Amino acid sequence: MLDKIDMSRDVKKKELNQIMESLGERLGAAQRKVREQKRPVIIVFEGWRGSCRDLIINTMMQYMDARGFKVLSAAMKGDEYRGQPFFTYFWRELPAKGNMDVFYRSWYYSKMVADCIKRENTVSFAAVNNFEKLLTDDGYLILKYFLHLSEEKQKKNLAKKEKQFGKNWDIAELALDDSKDYEGYYKYYQKMLTATDTANAPWHIVSAEDHQNARLEIYTSIVESIEKGIADKVVEVTEAPIDYKVLDNIDLQQTVSKDEYKEKLEKYQKKLTSLQLEMFSRKIPAIIGFEGWDAAGKGGAIRRLTAALNPLGYLVRPVAAPNSVEREYNYQWRFWKAIPKPGHITIFDRTWYGRVMVERVEGFALPEEWQRAYEEIREMERQWTDAGAVLVKFWLQIDRQEQLRRFEERQNNPVKQWKITDEDWRNREKWDVYERAVNEMLVRTSTEYAPWTVVEGNNKYYARLKVLQTVIDLFEKRLNK
Amino acid sequence: MLDKIDMSRDVKKKELNQIMESLGERLGAAQRKVREQKRPVIIVFEGWRGSCRDLIINTMMQYMDARGFKVLSAAMKGDEYRGQPFFTYFWRELPAKGNMDVFYRSWYYSKMVADCIKRENTVSFAAVNNFEKLLTDDGYLILKYFLHLSEEKQKKNLAKKEKQFGKNWDIAELALDDSKDYEGYYKYYQKMLTATDTANAPWHIVSAEDHQNARLEIYTSIVESIEKGIADKVVEVTEAPIDYKVLDNIDLQQTVSKDEYKEKLEKYQKKLTSLQLEMFSRKIPAIIGFEGWDAAGKGGAIRRLTAALNPLGYLVRPVAAPNSVEREYNYQWRFWKAIPKPGHITIFDRTWYGRVMVERVEGFALPEEWQRAYEEIREMERQWTDAGAVLVKFWLQIDRQEQLRRFEERQNNPVKQWKITDEDWRNREKWDVYERAVNEMLVRTSTEYAPWTVVEGNNKYYARLKVLQTVIDLFEKRLNK
Repeated sequence: MLDKIDMSRDVKKKELNQIMESLGERLGAAQRKVREQKRPVIIVFEGWRGSCRDLIINTMMQYMDARGFKVLSAAMKGDEYRGQPFFTYFWRELPAKGNMDVFYRSWYYSKMVADCIKRENTVSFAAVNNFEKLLTDDGYLILKYFLHLSEEKQKKNLAKKEKQFGKNWDIAELALDDSKDYEGYYKYYQKMLTATDTANAPWHIVSAEDHQNARLEIYTSIVESIEKGIADKVVEVTEAPIDYKVLDNIDLQQTVSKDEYKEKLEKYQKKLTSLQLEMFSRKIPAIIGFEGWDAAGKGGAIRRLTAALNPLGYLVRPVAAPNSVEREYNYQWRFWKAIPKPGHITIFDRTWYGRVMVERVEGFALPEEWQRAYEEIREMERQWTDAGAVLVKFWLQIDRQEQLRRFEERQNNPVKQWKITDEDWRNREKWDVYERAVNEMLVRTSTEYAPWTVVEGNNKYYARLKVLQTVIDLFEKRLNK
Repeated sequence: MLDKIDMSRDVKKKELNQIMESLGERLGAAQRKVREQKRPVIIVFEGWRGSCRDLIINTMMQYMDARGFKVLSAAMKGDEYRGQPFFTYFWRELPAKGNMDVFYRSWYYSKMVADCIKRENTVSFAAVNNFEKLLTDDGYLILKYFLHLSEEKQKKNLAKKEKQFGKNWDIAELALDDSKDYEGYYKYYQKMLTATDTANAPWHIVSAEDHQNARLEIYTSIVESIEKGIADKVVEVTEAPIDYKVLDNIDLQQTVSKDEYKEKLEKYQKKLTSLQLEMFSRKIPAIIGFEGWDAAGKGGAIRRLTAALNPLGYLVRPVAAPNSVEREYNYQWRFWKAIPKPGHITIFDRTWYGRVMVERVEGFALPEEWQRAYEEIREMERQWTDAGAVLVKFWLQIDRQEQLRRFEERQNNPVKQWKITDEDWRNREKWDVYERAVNEMLVRTSTEYAPWTVVEGNNKYYARLKVLQTVIDLFEKRLNK
């Protein structure tokens, strides 16, 4: 795509300020509308070293309202992201709905560093497209600018910068110097731009030979893209849900005696203590998610699991309805915030599958939202496991009668009464609708890298042992034991 | 204090489980009450290596509701905290109101590592006491446990652990091995416990010779302390505000011509560009706070400042009323979250001084809350500057007539109308009350390490140049130029 760029446009410089001012007013108005409509905007700047992104962007930003956006750079991301899944930093820094992020260097730079210098986890261009699609599907506007520069001009600019500010003028980006091999990087950029120029997030390639022109072109494009973006409506999809029947085949009669339980519990817990230490030493993170009917025994199973773990190395994350801040982001955001550091374990008591269960059933997500969530979740889990995490997902299954028995037991026990709420009874009435959602979820999100384990939960002893056994098996498999 | 501890208590072991269960029920009830009352709880565990904190705490935690607390350890804090002010990690991980944090290792450990191994910023014991007092004043319950162990028992425990799990069993804490010099560390612990045993956050020293006993003693103490804490009422303070008159002495007649402004602006901005690069290379962070009357020109001054800065190295943080999540924490929390990394600059558009201005005037903070805030803020700023940050605080002063003129100009300009709200007019009516608060703030929080700069703002050119000049002076001073 780079060979098609006109590198010599011209604008009368005296008119420039006036045009910029007027664009500034339009952008201000657009930004306020973006905030009202809760449309988040992400602006990505990539380009050659020496293309003066700093000058171009900074001057431009003088015309924007500082309250509306934050500037980030993938080149400045902290050490805490080393070893984390590729998009972790970008997920965690995502703008809230109605806000704007300017990425001075983005996931494209991170990927290039990982690809060309090989220090970090990388992803495919297809994964980049999926990431962007997830966001634009969710109403994000993504504007991508590539600042192009000829080899001669690059040399000239770099020499000038060095003369003015010394060798360290771009201290943050010294890791990657594309001027050392213009031709090689030219090919990389070509490939990158072609592979990721999508309808939902197209590239704008801008000649950076002249700063004034570049600034004007980018600024005009930003203003027009946002004005247009606001006007766009998201298309609604309606598709009949598919009726799967996985849960019907579960045998809930399995039991374990108290003696066998006690004996095995101790054995499994000892085993797990050692395995945790080994996972920790080898810096392998684990994500363990628990889903299941109300009163299916999630809490009890989690306690038997954590009893074996060193508290320094795990965290239990209870997941309830998103709070007011979390609602300002894509549903995946809070889970990306919570994934474990290398060597650590995060246990989710309820998970991101709320998107295709409670949010689907209660109508908190639109049909097109929860329908595309299966693919989005598969992608997210793939990225986590690709980066080295062990992912364990439990569905704790009990039948309707067993749930009723447990509800009544809680109701009648003063110490346990707080555990049962009116909402639990209301959810129980929707058993059939939930069952349909669970069946579809189990089918559509069981993958090789992140399979569901359905746990027969009518007998608590059996269920707890199966949970422990499963975690042990998957840890051992990952450790090649 | 350690010499007074009885190291040989005894409890009948068969009764233990029953007692623990019943304590668990009481704790569960207390935790639910804590949540209702929004009283946050922090439990600190310190003690000798080999005192089996893991066993003691983990078994105990089985009886607690995992949803109510998170477990943290100062030994596990990430690299991103290196070079940050001492309490940054603890501030950022503070439990929200109504939640519970268990620190498996706390600021005491961090301080000991810094004092004895000298790798990080440290603070005095007095600063530790101030930190805890700020929290308990704000309704936090802080329970501190020290697990004591004799030298022989320590040797025995360590040998046993190593035999069972290999050399790396406490991989996270290998940095500091107090068993290598029992006598020396005994003295350190004595000093630490004595210096930080305060009425609002006393130490509980527990013999760890026998795990069962230790567990029972700690658990009983936690349950009783929380039950008692819930019952306690915070005492109200009422003190007449002092009437200071600083703003009366400001000469608002100062002006600068447009030509002089243009010339100096360019000169100052060039200077600042170089200084930023140097601050970045030397990893010195800067915090620049802007306060001032509505329409005093904060936005304009900030833009002239940032025009000179590389966008990679600074962030503008607009500060509005706290959102629903921020309201769940102490008022300082969101500012600790936002302080810059080494070498970076954070510019606050309005600051933590809202506590003693808008919160005081509008009654969002109780009198005892905003009255103790002066000291709390001085302490916070001292910690930031002690850790190496440059702190610049601006009060942009205009007079009543000038504000009226600017309000009317905004009102009559369709492009600027959005900038003026009914709230601005309402605030204007409270000018006198705000003025009293501002005067008191300027007097009580002007310190040598963090002085206020009052900027005469009636003439915008003059004000912007003074802001730039002040930042340049303070940066140069810090760089010993």
